[in-house]
Amino acid sequence: MTQVDVRERILAGNAAAAAALRERFASTRTLVLNLISSPGSGKTTLLEATVRALAGRLRLGAIEGDIATERDADRLRALGIPAHQILTGGACHLDARQVSGALETHDLGPLDVLFIENVGNLVCPTSYDLGEDFKVALLSVTEGEDKPFKYPSIFAKSAVTVVTKADLMPHVTFRLDDVREQVAALRPDGTLLVTSAVTGEGIADWCALIEKRLAEKRGGAP
Amino acid sequence: MTQVDVRERILAGNAAAAAALRERFASTRTLVLNLISSPGSGKTTLLEATVRALAGRLRLGAIEGDIATERDADRLRALGIPAHQILTGGACHLDARQVSGALETHDLGPLDVLFIENVGNLVCPTSYDLGEDFKVALLSVTEGEDKPFKYPSIFAKSAVTVVTKADLMPHVTFRLDDVREQVAALRPDGTLLVTSAVTGEGIADWCALIEKRLAEKRGGAP
Repeated sequence: MTQVDVRERILAGNAAAAAALRERFASTRTLVLNLISSPGSGKTTLLEATVRALAGRLRLGAIEGDIATERDADRLRALGIPAHQILTGGACHLDARQVSGALETHDLGPLDVLFIENVGNLVCPTSYDLGEDFKVALLSVTEGEDKPFKYPSIFAKSAVTVVTKADLMPHVTFRLDDVREQVAALRPDGTLLVTSAVTGEGIADWCALIEKRLAEKRGGAP
Repeated sequence: MTQVDVRERILAGNAAAAAALRERFASTRTLVLNLISSPGSGKTTLLEATVRALAGRLRLGAIEGDIATERDADRLRALGIPAHQILTGGACHLDARQVSGALETHDLGPLDVLFIENVGNLVCPTSYDLGEDFKVALLSVTEGEDKPFKYPSIFAKSAVTVVTKADLMPHVTFRLDDVREQVAALRPDGTLLVTSAVTGEGIADWCALIEKRLAEKRGGAP
Protein backbone atom coordinates (compact mmCIF):
# COMPACT_ATOMS: atom_id res chain seq x y z
CA MET A 1 0.00 0.00 0.00
CA THR A 2 1.49 3.35 -1.05
CA GLN A 3 1.42 6.66 0.77
CA VAL A 4 -1.36 7.81 -1.59
CA ASP A 5 -3.37 4.64 -0.90
CA VAL A 6 -3.06 5.18 2.83
CA ARG A 7 -4.19 8.79 2.53
CA GLU A 8 -7.16 7.78 0.39
CA ARG A 9 -8.14 5.10 2.88
CA ILE A 10 -7.92 7.60 5.76
CA LEU A 11 -10.03 10.16 3.93
CA ALA A 12 -12.61 7.52 2.92
CA GLY A 13 -12.91 6.41 6.54
CA ASN A 14 -13.28 10.02 7.58
CA ALA A 15 -15.97 10.66 4.97
CA ALA A 16 -18.04 7.73 6.28
CA ALA A 17 -17.75 8.97 9.85
CA ALA A 18 -18.62 12.51 8.76
CA ALA A 19 -21.72 11.28 6.92
CA ALA A 20 -22.90 9.55 10.11
CA LEU A 21 -22.29 12.74 12.08
CA ARG A 22 -24.24 14.77 9.53
CA GLU A 23 -27.22 12.41 9.89
CA ARG A 24 -27.01 12.67 13.64
CA PHE A 25 -26.93 16.49 13.53
CA ALA A 26 -29.88 16.47 11.09
CA SER A 27 -31.93 14.37 13.47
CA THR A 28 -31.14 16.61 16.43
CA ARG A 29 -31.63 19.72 14.26
CA THR A 30 -28.29 21.06 15.46
CA LEU A 31 -26.42 23.60 13.34
CA VAL A 32 -22.72 22.73 13.28
CA LEU A 33 -19.88 25.10 12.40
CA ASN A 34 -16.26 24.00 11.86
CA LEU A 35 -13.96 26.92 12.72
CA ILE A 36 -10.50 26.87 11.13
CA SER A 37 -7.64 29.38 11.30
CA SER A 38 -3.99 29.88 12.18
CA PRO A 39 -3.05 29.57 15.84
CA GLY A 40 -3.91 32.82 17.60
CA SER A 41 -6.36 34.23 15.06
CA GLY A 42 -9.00 34.49 17.74
CA LYS A 43 -11.28 31.45 17.35
CA THR A 44 -11.91 31.02 21.07
CA THR A 45 -12.22 34.76 21.58
CA LEU A 46 -14.85 34.94 18.81
CA LEU A 47 -16.72 32.07 20.46
CA GLU A 48 -16.60 33.85 23.83
CA ALA A 49 -18.15 36.95 22.25
CA THR A 50 -20.74 34.75 20.49
CA VAL A 51 -21.72 32.99 23.70
CA ARG A 52 -22.14 36.33 25.47
CA ALA A 53 -24.26 37.72 22.62
CA LEU A 54 -26.51 34.66 22.23
CA ALA A 55 -26.77 33.69 25.90
CA GLY A 56 -30.30 32.71 26.83
CA ARG A 57 -31.47 32.71 23.19
CA LEU A 58 -29.84 29.53 21.88
CA ARG A 59 -28.44 26.38 23.44
CA LEU A 60 -24.77 26.47 22.48
CA GLY A 61 -22.00 23.91 22.92
CA ALA A 62 -18.42 23.47 21.77
CA ILE A 63 -15.87 20.83 20.89
CA GLU A 64 -12.33 22.17 21.07
CA GLY A 65 -9.39 20.61 19.27
CA ASP A 66 -5.85 21.18 20.45
CA ILE A 67 -2.50 19.42 20.48
CA ALA A 68 -2.24 20.02 24.23
CA THR A 69 -3.92 21.86 27.17
CA GLU A 70 -7.60 22.10 28.19
CA ARG A 71 -7.39 25.87 28.13
CA ASP A 72 -9.88 26.63 25.35
CA ALA A 73 -12.65 24.38 26.72
CA ASP A 74 -12.06 25.91 30.17
CA ARG A 75 -12.59 29.39 28.74
CA LEU A 76 -15.96 28.42 27.25
CA ARG A 77 -17.13 26.41 30.25
CA ALA A 78 -16.41 29.51 32.34
CA LEU A 79 -19.15 31.22 30.31
CA GLY A 80 -21.62 28.49 31.18
CA ILE A 81 -21.78 26.41 27.99
CA PRO A 82 -20.91 22.72 27.71
CA ALA A 83 -17.52 22.28 26.06
CA HIS A 84 -15.37 19.23 25.49
CA GLN A 85 -11.66 19.33 24.74
CA ILE A 86 -10.21 16.79 22.30
CA LEU A 87 -6.44 16.52 22.70
CA THR A 88 -5.02 15.27 19.42
CA GLY A 89 -1.67 14.30 20.93
CA GLY A 90 0.34 15.85 18.16
CA ALA A 91 -2.08 15.45 15.25
CA CYS A 92 -2.52 18.61 13.21
CA HIS A 93 -6.32 18.48 12.70
CA LEU A 94 -9.53 16.99 14.06
CA ASP A 95 -11.11 14.07 12.25
CA ALA A 96 -14.71 12.91 12.22
CA ARG A 97 -14.05 9.82 14.33
CA GLN A 98 -12.60 11.98 17.11
CA VAL A 99 -15.74 14.11 17.04
CA SER A 100 -17.99 11.02 17.10
CA GLY A 101 -16.01 9.58 19.98
CA ALA A 102 -16.24 12.83 21.93
CA LEU A 103 -20.02 12.96 21.48
CA GLU A 104 -20.38 9.33 22.59
CA THR A 105 -18.38 9.77 25.76
CA HIS A 106 -19.25 13.35 26.70
CA ASP A 107 -22.91 14.28 26.48
CA LEU A 108 -23.17 17.98 25.65
CA GLY A 109 -26.98 17.80 25.98
CA PRO A 110 -29.47 19.03 23.35
CA LEU A 111 -27.94 21.86 21.33
CA ASP A 112 -29.16 24.41 18.82
CA VAL A 113 -25.63 25.20 17.67
CA LEU A 114 -22.43 23.19 18.07
CA PHE A 115 -19.15 24.99 17.41
CA ILE A 116 -16.21 22.75 16.52
CA GLU A 117 -13.01 24.69 16.99
CA ASN A 118 -10.33 22.91 15.00
CA VAL A 119 -6.62 22.71 15.80
CA GLY A 120 -4.91 25.99 14.89
CA ASN A 121 -3.70 25.24 11.37
CA LEU A 122 -4.70 26.71 8.00
CA VAL A 123 -3.71 23.62 6.02
CA CYS A 124 -4.46 20.16 7.38
CA PRO A 125 -7.99 20.66 8.79
CA THR A 126 -9.12 21.64 5.29
CA SER A 127 -9.28 18.02 4.11
CA TYR A 128 -11.32 16.56 6.98
CA ASP A 129 -15.11 16.85 6.85
CA LEU A 130 -16.49 16.81 10.40
CA GLY A 131 -20.17 16.57 9.45
CA GLU A 132 -20.52 20.35 9.79
CA ASP A 133 -23.10 22.50 8.03
CA PHE A 134 -20.33 24.83 6.93
CA LYS A 135 -16.73 25.76 7.55
CA VAL A 136 -15.69 29.16 8.86
CA ALA A 137 -12.20 30.49 8.11
CA LEU A 138 -10.86 33.16 10.44
CA LEU A 139 -8.14 35.63 9.46
CA SER A 140 -6.84 38.23 11.89
CA VAL A 141 -5.77 41.59 10.50
CA THR A 142 -2.28 41.11 11.99
CA GLU A 143 -1.61 38.11 9.73
CA GLY A 144 -1.44 40.18 6.55
CA GLU A 145 -3.70 40.43 3.55
CA ASP A 146 -1.82 37.88 1.43
CA LYS A 147 -3.14 34.84 3.23
CA PRO A 148 -6.20 33.75 1.17
CA PHE A 149 -4.12 33.25 -1.99
CA LYS A 150 -1.29 31.64 0.03
CA TYR A 151 -3.70 29.14 1.65
CA PRO A 152 -6.36 28.96 -1.06
CA SER A 153 -7.98 25.66 -0.17
CA ILE A 154 -9.41 26.65 3.19
CA PHE A 155 -10.76 29.97 1.91
CA ALA A 156 -12.36 28.18 -1.05
CA LYS A 157 -14.00 25.59 1.19
CA SER A 158 -15.30 28.04 3.82
CA ALA A 159 -18.80 29.44 3.27
CA VAL A 160 -17.93 32.20 5.73
CA THR A 161 -14.68 34.10 6.24
CA VAL A 162 -14.45 36.12 9.45
CA VAL A 163 -11.82 38.83 9.60
CA THR A 164 -10.92 39.23 13.30
CA LYS A 165 -9.10 41.82 15.45
CA ALA A 166 -10.41 44.72 13.34
CA ASP A 167 -9.61 46.97 16.33
CA LEU A 168 -5.91 46.52 15.48
CA MET A 169 -6.38 47.77 11.88
CA PRO A 170 -4.99 51.27 12.67
CA HIS A 171 -1.74 49.71 13.91
CA VAL A 172 -0.94 47.32 11.07
CA THR A 173 -0.76 47.24 7.29
CA PHE A 174 -3.80 45.26 6.17
CA ARG A 175 -5.59 45.98 2.90
CA LEU A 176 -9.10 44.74 3.56
CA ASP A 177 -10.13 45.30 -0.07
CA ASP A 178 -7.36 42.89 -1.18
CA VAL A 179 -8.73 40.24 1.15
CA ARG A 180 -12.28 40.80 -0.11
CA GLU A 181 -11.08 40.34 -3.70
CA GLN A 182 -9.13 37.16 -2.94
CA VAL A 183 -11.97 35.59 -0.96
CA ALA A 184 -14.50 36.54 -3.66
CA ALA A 185 -12.28 34.89 -6.28
CA LEU A 186 -11.83 31.72 -4.24
CA ARG A 187 -15.42 31.48 -2.99
CA PRO A 188 -17.79 33.59 -5.11
CA ASP A 189 -20.88 32.67 -3.03
CA GLY A 190 -19.12 33.18 0.31
CA THR A 191 -19.80 35.71 3.03
CA LEU A 192 -17.08 37.88 4.55
CA LEU A 193 -17.59 39.53 7.93
CA VAL A 194 -15.28 42.00 9.68
CA THR A 195 -15.27 41.68 13.46
CA SER A 196 -13.58 42.72 16.67
CA ALA A 197 -14.22 40.95 19.93
CA VAL A 198 -12.74 44.02 21.67
CA THR A 199 -15.04 46.69 20.23
CA GLY A 200 -17.92 44.36 19.36
CA GLU A 201 -17.79 45.35 15.68
CA GLY A 202 -19.49 42.78 13.48
CA ILE A 203 -20.53 40.44 16.30
CA ALA A 204 -24.24 41.17 15.79
CA ASP A 205 -23.91 40.37 12.07
CA TRP A 206 -22.08 37.14 12.88
CA CYS A 207 -24.77 36.09 15.37
CA ALA A 208 -27.51 37.04 12.90
CA LEU A 209 -25.84 34.81 10.29
CA ILE A 210 -25.83 31.89 12.73
CA GLU A 211 -29.50 32.40 13.62
CA LYS A 212 -30.44 32.66 9.94
CA ARG A 213 -28.59 29.45 9.05
CA LEU A 214 -30.19 27.67 11.99
CA ALA A 215 -33.66 28.80 10.90
CA GLU A 216 -32.93 27.63 7.33
CA LYS A 217 -31.79 24.24 8.56
CA ARG A 218 -34.90 23.84 10.66
CA GLY A 219 -37.21 25.22 7.97
CA GLY A 220 -35.89 22.49 5.71
CA ALA A 221 -36.71 19.77 8.23
CA PRO A 222 -40.08 17.97 8.03
CA MET B 1 1.61 -1.62 5.47
CA THR B 2 -0.18 0.36 8.14
CA GLN B 3 -0.52 4.12 8.52
CA VAL B 4 2.18 4.04 11.21
CA ASP B 5 4.52 2.07 8.95
CA VAL B 6 4.02 4.57 6.14
CA ARG B 7 4.73 7.49 8.46
CA GLU B 8 7.87 5.79 9.78
CA ARG B 9 9.06 5.08 6.26
CA ILE B 10 8.50 8.71 5.26
CA LEU B 11 10.37 10.02 8.29
CA ALA B 12 13.25 7.57 7.74
CA GLY B 13 13.54 8.73 4.13
CA ASN B 14 13.49 12.32 5.31
CA ALA B 15 16.18 11.66 7.93
CA ALA B 16 18.49 10.21 5.26
CA ALA B 17 17.97 13.20 2.98
CA ALA B 18 18.48 15.60 5.91
CA ALA B 19 21.77 13.89 6.85
CA ALA B 20 23.02 14.37 3.30
CA LEU B 21 22.01 18.04 3.40
CA ARG B 22 23.81 18.49 6.74
CA GLU B 23 27.01 17.08 5.21
CA ARG B 24 26.63 19.37 2.24
CA PHE B 25 26.17 22.43 4.48
CA ALA B 26 29.16 21.37 6.60
CA SER B 27 31.37 21.18 3.52
CA THR B 28 30.22 24.61 2.27
CA ARG B 29 30.46 25.99 5.84
CA THR B 30 26.96 27.42 5.48
CA LEU B 31 24.89 28.11 8.61
CA VAL B 32 21.30 26.98 8.03
CA LEU B 33 18.24 28.13 9.97
CA ASN B 34 14.79 26.52 9.68
CA LEU B 35 12.15 29.14 10.53
CA ILE B 36 8.78 27.85 11.70
CA SER B 37 5.65 29.68 12.86
CA SER B 38 1.95 30.21 12.31
CA PRO B 39 0.93 31.90 9.07
CA GLY B 40 1.36 35.65 9.45
CA SER B 41 3.73 35.64 12.43
CA GLY B 42 6.25 37.64 10.45
CA LYS B 43 8.83 35.17 9.15
CA THR B 44 9.40 36.97 5.85
CA THR B 45 9.30 40.36 7.55
CA LEU B 46 11.97 39.26 10.03
CA LEU B 47 14.09 38.01 7.11
CA GLU B 48 13.67 41.35 5.31
CA ALA B 49 14.92 43.17 8.42
CA THR B 50 17.79 40.67 8.72
CA VAL B 51 18.86 41.12 5.12
CA ARG B 52 18.85 44.91 5.55
CA ALA B 53 20.90 44.67 8.76
CA LEU B 54 23.48 42.19 7.43
CA ALA B 55 23.74 43.49 3.85
CA GLY B 56 27.33 43.59 2.68
CA ARG B 57 28.59 41.65 5.71
CA LEU B 58 27.37 38.14 4.97
CA ARG B 59 26.28 36.27 1.88
CA LEU B 60 22.63 35.40 2.59
CA GLY B 61 20.14 33.26 0.70
CA ALA B 62 16.67 31.86 1.29
CA ILE B 63 14.46 28.94 0.44
CA GLU B 64 10.78 29.77 0.91
CA GLY B 65 8.09 27.15 1.47
CA ASP B 66 4.46 27.89 0.66
CA ILE B 67 1.34 26.11 -0.48
CA ALA B 68 0.89 28.65 -3.26
CA THR B 69 2.27 32.01 -4.59
CA GLU B 70 5.86 33.18 -5.19
CA ARG B 71 5.25 36.22 -3.01
CA ASP B 72 7.73 35.55 -0.22
CA ALA B 73 10.67 34.76 -2.50
CA ASP B 74 9.82 37.87 -4.53
CA ARG B 75 10.01 40.01 -1.38
CA LEU B 76 13.52 38.74 -0.57
CA ARG B 77 14.81 38.88 -4.15
CA ALA B 78 13.69 42.53 -4.16
CA LEU B 79 16.29 43.10 -1.43
CA GLY B 80 19.03 41.61 -3.58
CA ILE B 81 19.51 38.13 -2.11
CA PRO B 82 19.05 34.84 -3.98
CA ALA B 83 15.77 33.20 -2.97
CA HIS B 84 13.98 30.13 -4.29
CA GLN B 85 10.32 29.41 -3.71
CA ILE B 86 9.22 25.80 -3.18
CA LEU B 87 5.49 25.40 -3.80
CA THR B 88 4.32 22.38 -1.84
CA GLY B 89 1.04 22.05 -3.76
CA GLY B 90 -1.03 21.55 -0.64
CA ALA B 91 1.51 19.85 1.61
CA CYS B 92 1.68 21.37 5.08
CA HIS B 93 5.48 21.38 5.56
CA LEU B 94 8.79 21.27 3.72
CA ASP B 95 10.75 18.02 3.64
CA ALA B 96 14.46 17.44 3.14
CA ARG B 97 14.05 16.02 -0.36
CA GLN B 98 12.30 19.19 -1.51
CA VAL B 99 15.18 21.25 -0.15
CA SER B 100 17.76 18.97 -1.85
CA GLY B 101 15.84 19.19 -5.11
CA ALA B 102 15.67 22.97 -4.89
CA LEU B 103 19.42 23.24 -4.31
CA GLU B 104 20.15 20.91 -7.26
CA THR B 105 18.00 22.85 -9.71
CA HIS B 106 18.46 26.41 -8.43
CA ASP B 107 21.99 27.45 -7.62
CA LEU B 108 21.88 30.06 -4.85
CA GLY B 109 25.66 30.52 -5.08
CA PRO B 110 28.08 30.31 -2.14
CA LEU B 111 26.32 31.33 1.06
CA ASP B 112 27.34 32.14 4.61
CA VAL B 113 23.79 31.77 5.87
CA LEU B 114 20.81 29.99 4.32
CA PHE B 115 17.38 30.76 5.76
CA ILE B 116 14.74 28.10 5.14
CA GLU B 117 11.31 29.61 5.73
CA ASN B 118 8.92 26.74 6.28
CA VAL B 119 5.21 26.62 5.38
CA GLY B 120 3.18 28.63 7.91
CA ASN B 121 2.19 25.90 10.36
CA LEU B 122 3.13 25.32 14.01
CA VAL B 123 2.54 21.57 13.87
CA CYS B 124 3.63 19.56 10.82
CA PRO B 125 7.04 21.16 10.06
CA THR B 126 8.16 20.12 13.55
CA SER B 127 8.74 16.51 12.50
CA TYR B 128 10.85 17.14 9.39
CA ASP B 129 14.58 17.72 9.79
CA LEU B 130 15.86 19.82 6.89
CA GLY B 131 19.56 19.47 7.68
CA GLU B 132 19.49 22.82 9.50
CA ASP B 133 21.88 23.88 12.26
CA PHE B 134 18.91 24.88 14.38
CA LYS B 135 15.20 25.59 14.26
CA VAL B 136 13.75 29.01 15.05
CA ALA B 137 10.17 29.32 16.29
CA LEU B 138 8.46 32.66 15.80
CA LEU B 139 5.53 33.84 17.91
CA SER B 140 3.88 37.21 17.32
CA VAL B 141 2.49 39.08 20.32
CA THR B 142 -0.95 39.14 18.69
CA GLU B 143 -1.23 35.33 18.85
CA GLY B 144 -1.54 35.22 22.64
CA GLU B 145 0.79 33.99 25.33
CA ASP B 146 -0.72 30.50 25.61
CA LYS B 147 0.88 29.16 22.43
CA PRO B 148 4.08 27.44 23.66
CA PHE B 149 2.18 25.03 25.91
CA LYS B 150 -0.53 24.53 23.24
CA TYR B 151 2.09 23.67 20.59
CA PRO B 152 4.84 22.27 22.82
CA SER B 153 6.78 20.25 20.28
CA ILE B 154 7.98 23.10 18.11
CA PHE B 155 9.00 25.26 21.08
CA ALA B 156 10.89 22.30 22.59
CA LYS B 157 12.71 21.61 19.31
CA SER B 158 13.66 25.22 18.58
CA ALA B 159 17.00 26.44 19.94
CA VAL B 160 15.74 29.99 19.42
CA THR B 161 12.29 31.49 19.95
CA VAL B 162 11.74 34.91 18.41
CA VAL B 163 8.83 36.96 19.71
CA THR B 164 7.78 39.25 16.85
CA LYS B 165 5.63 42.39 16.44
CA ALA B 166 6.67 43.72 19.86
CA ASP B 167 5.54 47.16 18.63
CA LEU B 168 1.93 45.92 18.96
CA MET B 169 2.39 44.98 22.64
CA PRO B 170 0.60 48.15 23.90
CA HIS B 171 -2.51 47.22 21.89
CA VAL B 172 -2.93 43.56 22.89
CA THR B 173 -2.97 41.37 25.96
CA PHE B 174 0.30 39.44 25.88
CA ARG B 175 2.10 38.40 29.05
CA LEU B 176 5.70 38.13 27.93
CA ASP B 177 6.76 36.64 31.27
CA ASP B 178 4.31 33.76 30.74
CA VAL B 179 5.90 33.05 27.37
CA ARG B 180 9.39 33.18 28.87
CA GLU B 181 8.38 30.66 31.54
CA GLN B 182 6.77 28.26 29.06
CA VAL B 183 9.69 28.40 26.64
CA ALA B 184 12.19 27.93 29.50
CA ALA B 185 10.23 24.86 30.66
CA LEU B 186 10.07 23.37 27.18
CA ARG B 187 13.63 24.24 26.15
CA PRO B 188 15.82 25.04 29.15
CA ASP B 189 18.92 25.79 27.04
CA GLY B 190 17.00 27.88 24.50
CA THR B 191 17.33 31.57 23.69
CA LEU B 192 14.33 33.91 23.55
CA LEU B 193 14.53 37.21 21.69
CA VAL B 194 11.92 39.97 21.54
CA THR B 195 11.82 41.82 18.23
CA SER B 196 9.93 44.29 16.11
CA ALA B 197 10.67 44.73 12.43
CA VAL B 198 8.79 48.07 12.66
CA THR B 199 10.84 49.72 15.43
CA GLY B 200 13.98 47.61 14.95
CA GLU B 201 13.85 46.35 18.54
CA GLY B 202 15.90 43.18 18.99
CA ILE B 203 17.09 42.97 15.37
CA ALA B 204 20.72 43.69 16.33
CA ASP B 205 20.61 40.91 18.96
CA TRP B 206 19.11 38.52 16.41
CA CYS B 207 21.81 39.36 13.85
CA ALA B 208 24.52 39.02 16.52
CA LEU B 209 23.18 35.56 17.38
CA ILE B 210 23.40 34.53 13.72
CA GLU B 211 26.96 35.84 13.40
CA LYS B 212 28.00 34.08 16.63
CA ARG B 213 26.53 30.75 15.49
CA LEU B 214 28.23 31.10 12.12
CA ALA B 215 31.58 31.80 13.79
CA GLU B 216 31.10 28.77 16.05
CA LYS B 217 30.30 26.55 13.10
CA ARG B 218 33.38 27.75 11.24
CA GLY B 219 35.59 27.65 14.30
CA GLY B 220 34.68 23.99 14.63
CA ALA B 221 35.74 23.21 11.06
CA PRO B 222 39.29 21.98 10.34
